[in-house]
Amino acid sequence: MTIPKTMRAVVLTGHGGTDKLEFRTDWPVPVPGDNEVLVRVLACGMNNTDVNTRTGWYSKAVTDATTGGAQTNAGADDPSWGGAPIAFPRIQGADMVGTVVAAGPGADESLIGRRVMADCWLRNWDDLADIVNVGYFGSERDGGFAEYATIDHRNVLPVESDLSDAELATFSCSYTTAENLLNRVGCGAGDTVLITGASGGVGSALIQLANHRGATTVAMASEAKHAQVAHANPRVILPRAPEDLAAALQAAIGRSTVSIVADVVGGAYWPRLIDVLERGGRYGTSGAIAGPVVPLDLRTLYLHDLTFHGCTVTTPNVFPDLVGYIERGEIRPMLAAAYPLEDFHAAQTAFIEKRHVGNIVVVP
Amino acid sequence: MTIPKTMRAVVLTGHGGTDKLEFRTDWPVPVPGDNEVLVRVLACGMNNTDVNTRTGWYSKAVTDATTGGAQTNAGADDPSWGGAPIAFPRIQGADMVGTVVAAGPGADESLIGRRVMADCWLRNWDDLADIVNVGYFGSERDGGFAEYATIDHRNVLPVESDLSDAELATFSCSYTTAENLLNRVGCGAGDTVLITGASGGVGSALIQLANHRGATTVAMASEAKHAQVAHANPRVILPRAPEDLAAALQAAIGRSTVSIVADVVGGAYWPRLIDVLERGGRYGTSGAIAGPVVPLDLRTLYLHDLTFHGCTVTTPNVFPDLVGYIERGEIRPMLAAAYPLEDFHAAQTAFIEKRHVGNIVVVP
Repeated sequence: MTIPKTMRAVVLTGHGGTDKLEFRTDWPVPVPGDNEVLVRVLACGMNNTDVNTRTGWYSKAVTDATTGGAQTNAGADDPSWGGAPIAFPRIQGADMVGTVVAAGPGADESLIGRRVMADCWLRNWDDLADIVNVGYFGSERDGGFAEYATIDHRNVLPVESDLSDAELATFSCSYTTAENLLNRVGCGAGDTVLITGASGGVGSALIQLANHRGATTVAMASEAKHAQVAHANPRVILPRAPEDLAAALQAAIGRSTVSIVADVVGGAYWPRLIDVLERGGRYGTSGAIAGPVVPLDLRTLYLHDLTFHGCTVTTPNVFPDLVGYIERGEIRPMLAAAYPLEDFHAAQTAFIEKRHVGNIVVVP
Repeated sequence: MTIPKTMRAVVLTGHGGTDKLEFRTDWPVPVPGDNEVLVRVLACGMNNTDVNTRTGWYSKAVTDATTGGAQTNAGADDPSWGGAPIAFPRIQGADMVGTVVAAGPGADESLIGRRVMADCWLRNWDDLADIVNVGYFGSERDGGFAEYATIDHRNVLPVESDLSDAELATFSCSYTTAENLLNRVGCGAGDTVLITGASGGVGSALIQLANHRGATTVAMASEAKHAQVAHANPRVILPRAPEDLAAALQAAIGRSTVSIVADVVGGAYWPRLIDVLERGGRYGTSGAIAGPVVPLDLRTLYLHDLTFHGCTVTTPNVFPDLVGYIERGEIRPMLAAAYPLEDFHAAQTAFIEKRHVGNIVVVP
């Protein structure tokens, strides 16, 4: 196979609006370094983290990621999730599916020719428990919004599945995030899990993966999306923000409290989520799309013996576990739409508008 | 031994100010019921929970427990920590030390004549993991601010110690709360623990019990109290609210972050406590004396993979563990003052003014 010298890629030139995303046709194809493979990208999912990194939302100077870049934080000291500045230009895109086409020194050559998924976390391979010296594919190094990408060979796994490339690209970022959150909160068959933002990538992943554990799932989503959210098969679906959440739960599942809240939304409604946790209940968060700064009543936290888990860096077992679920058909893709790479701006605009359910994918 | 029919007691007549606390000399001596012992009270420690219950602070309509009753919440629907109303009149006082003088039907008669300490938690003895159907001694039933009290025989343990009655009465509430919090956050020898409110009962307990685990302890207290806080032997003592906490930590212990924050204060300074937690750090709370409603940035919680533990109901192992520490001399009492029962109002006024370090005890 001949590997070209240049490729098509969407290049982020700095923190800001979508105008900082340039579609290029002359970008150099990367060369795999030590322990790295070169992947011909077949599809790459889009996630909130792409938008958050672009706008600088992770720096905490911007509180609203839903503006799609109207508010940005280009001048902040700490504009990435990880505390270190993003190096520009940067190709984003964490959720890569592709074919391995070359192996650098030390990389596993048996991967060549295989269709693989990528674990988004760039790990410290000398200490897998290290959650400080880690990075994110498409953030601390170039990702999959391009025709080719390089990645450590230990970050990819072959996947035996009849799913399409675009379907496979719906899983990695959202489903590892969701599975890791469910591990952290200790979700099991006896739990009742309230899931916010159930129409989004992580939300629909939380439904499927909590169902997979035998838990009772209660999804929250805007009513226009209920029919589509139902494809993820939650036990019940509630509106996005019921005025009396305890009463809504009582009517829907026969109890006014839940043992787990799995949240990616935050925002003004947040205190009501906490108020329906039973004594000893657990809250897990992996995002705050409706607003990150919330009023916490410490009395609720301590008098109800609650535990809050903030969940970002997944443990290394999560990604291979996910690949197993996919290969065994235990979870299903929720592909909302696939866009060609050259229509990236249209894809990102659709993604930010949040009218879709599930995942939007870009296909080079 | 002859047991009188009436006794001296401090009786709380309703939610409100200290005027709701009546010193009575004609209160009926309680009769032990099934599985209960009658205890002649030798000393009973005073705790924030006494004040919180009196003012109705647990109901969440009152946000400032430091007013000593200027703000009260007598009319709220849910004026106790546990969600059920307090029955009045009520004798408060959780931290009881006394001599068992009688045993009711089914109670262990070998306890008669022994000096005992009481575990404050009134448990569901049929299900010790139940944290819903529990109560607190001096809240859901009469406590130790009296000459006599009854309690389930499984709630008391004999203590072999040379410590005085008043010294023994400094431990139960504060130290079981602190030990349970350290268990929840998983405090061990490798941890660096930032302790707020270090001059208080739980604060000084946290210092001693974290030291007992081999952790590095950093106490925070107002500077007027540093000399006394030093008796609890923290590694270093910082002011109550350093302007730049990271810099203060760096100067004091050579690192700008901690692995654990153990907090009983909350209030306006709270976000800075969270900001010095290392990635993967743990926050534990058992109180919020400076104000319960705090602004939480969910980005800090989730992007730093933090865990927050709200800690109220202790696990059943905590109290016997504590008695072991006391009997082996591994922790020391921090007795600030002992007041006769008839001077209860003066004791509570001194307690609320928070000029003391350690614990204030009432002796009938």
